[in-house]
Amino acid sequence: MLDEARSTTAWLRAAVEDELAVFVGEQELLLREVDPETGPVLDAVRALLSGGKRLRPSFCFWGHRGAGGDGGEEGRGILRAAAALELFQAAALLHDDVMDDSDTRRGQPAAHRRFAAQHRAATWSGSAERFGLAGAVLAGDLCLAWSDEVFARSPFPAERLWAGRRVFDTMRTQLMGGQYLDMLEQASSASRGAAGAVERARRVVRFKSAKYSIEHPLLLGAALAGADDALVASYSTFGLALGEAFQLRDDVLGVFGDPSVTGKPAGDDLREGKRTVLVALAVQAADARQAALVERLLGDPDLDGRGVDALREVLVATGALERVEDLITTQVEVACTALEQADVDATARAALHELVVAATARRS
Amino acid sequence: MLDEARSTTAWLRAAVEDELAVFVGEQELLLREVDPETGPVLDAVRALLSGGKRLRPSFCFWGHRGAGGDGGEEGRGILRAAAALELFQAAALLHDDVMDDSDTRRGQPAAHRRFAAQHRAATWSGSAERFGLAGAVLAGDLCLAWSDEVFARSPFPAERLWAGRRVFDTMRTQLMGGQYLDMLEQASSASRGAAGAVERARRVVRFKSAKYSIEHPLLLGAALAGADDALVASYSTFGLALGEAFQLRDDVLGVFGDPSVTGKPAGDDLREGKRTVLVALAVQAADARQAALVERLLGDPDLDGRGVDALREVLVATGALERVEDLITTQVEVACTALEQADVDATARAALHELVVAATARRS
Repeated sequence: MLDEARSTTAWLRAAVEDELAVFVGEQELLLREVDPETGPVLDAVRALLSGGKRLRPSFCFWGHRGAGGDGGEEGRGILRAAAALELFQAAALLHDDVMDDSDTRRGQPAAHRRFAAQHRAATWSGSAERFGLAGAVLAGDLCLAWSDEVFARSPFPAERLWAGRRVFDTMRTQLMGGQYLDMLEQASSASRGAAGAVERARRVVRFKSAKYSIEHPLLLGAALAGADDALVASYSTFGLALGEAFQLRDDVLGVFGDPSVTGKPAGDDLREGKRTVLVALAVQAADARQAALVERLLGDPDLDGRGVDALREVLVATGALERVEDLITTQVEVACTALEQADVDATARAALHELVVAATARRS
Repeated sequence: MLDEARSTTAWLRAAVEDELAVFVGEQELLLREVDPETGPVLDAVRALLSGGKRLRPSFCFWGHRGAGGDGGEEGRGILRAAAALELFQAAALLHDDVMDDSDTRRGQPAAHRRFAAQHRAATWSGSAERFGLAGAVLAGDLCLAWSDEVFARSPFPAERLWAGRRVFDTMRTQLMGGQYLDMLEQASSASRGAAGAVERARRVVRFKSAKYSIEHPLLLGAALAGADDALVASYSTFGLALGEAFQLRDDVLGVFGDPSVTGKPAGDDLREGKRTVLVALAVQAADARQAALVERLLGDPDLDGRGVDALREVLVATGALERVEDLITTQVEVACTALEQADVDATARAALHELVVAATARRS
């Protein structure tokens, strides 16, 4: 069963890749009709689509299979839904990098940086940064529109597609609400102080990550397979718990991860001043000296290795790191219990369990 | 017939407004579930949706009616499709203002400026500009997702909705391609020189404006009514010609319009350095002195009243303004001829003719 689960997940990744390649190839024709010089926009989209863990497609696929969804026409449908999730994620990443003014994405220059470099290399007029920003916003907008277009093409019976659409629509709206909440928290947390900060950070995690990355993809697959309420409830419990654990692992890696494995410079999350649960727990437990140190160093874009080490020390000394690791362990247990009790076949269970490990025990 | 056409168009505007209000109210519940503090994002969306000429909904509605589309369930459907066009337009405007770093939209501060002001007023940490940019990008992303959600809810028979979706999808992709082409042209036109500039500017107009604002909304209405090929061809001829005339009128108003009527500061298009057909025609016909003047002043963000006057003089003296007015006249004639020959009923013909006048003889 484990072998079957693994080989199916591997097949799925390749199949989603193919689905995306065919779709983007069709869009290329429409864009060439506008002008062949639109090429760089497609390059930016393809770059975003070619990597990634295919996490959301995997949850969508196994959520569907676990709910009794089968192959054939429906098998094609679930690949489309999975591809739609990847296009939506590409849009989110493109716009995220613009909003955060990030330099890199998966170790490569972020899309807006590449458009800016194109502008500079051609010695065009006007601001290269602004050209870069606009190119990346447009590439993201295309991915948003395409995400929906692929989803609508999924060959499911109308009432199934309709049930899936409700999940898909809720996912999109609540992710964007969560992203706004996240930036609000980054901006306002210093003035709001430590009280309630842990709860606020966990709320951001719930909407920006747990629902978006795991619960909604699972429920999308479930809805497309016509799952019953009991299974939907199990998936929700599983997805929300695992999703929180997944994001908390991400937060830990963002501070303590090995740059050669994560592909992100060490301490980047600290330089960006991300108000993670990890940071909120540290601030809550900090003494006056530690609190002052966090206040001074967190979010300093020029933070050097010594500053990173000093902040790491506070995260360890306050017990925040340990509490986050405990929280990850607890949530993984909640997820595993929900998975054990869910009415899914053995292969789907094995596959979802593999995904738990991949999402929380990873190093990148 | 003219009275009926006018009163129906007026009713349509109010009905689309209602449709949008109900839909956004539903989304508010989903966003409040994330957090009541997401309110400012909805404010930004509502501000964008509350104004505007409802041009695209009007073309969509009359395109549908002209093709024999009726009321009842279908009447509700066409309002949904029209509302989807308005949400898509709101997204385009929100992102446009970010990409152009515009100060105002319809005489009010642009959304990104309002988010930035909110940040400043609260004395939050980090960059107010970046907060503003992120807020407006997210608000636009929401509108993009919602546009599609409303469209999918239009209660048309599946094959009609499917035909409509093909137009809707093409419209979105080609608008974004056109926007990229536009920014490419703004950036690169100085280095490319005058040769081919008029053709390039007209190509931008075709995809960014003529197809998007008129042809595609008409064809969307037609597809949803199951129009035959002959009517689709008439609509295309009509829409592309009128759409070009519409944009050329916009370009003229952007330079010569009365700020108290247009709501935009005089000469703003000149300060932004927009490479319109008007400008391309002037550069093509300019002598050395005039060409140098355009080169020096166009796109100067600090251009004062004298500079605006000097550029206006070149646009007049080179005959560019006259040629654009001729082009508008020609295209309006092409549109009117196509409309006369189109197989639509007298009310739809009268309504579309009214829209020709509104789109090209306007002062704002």
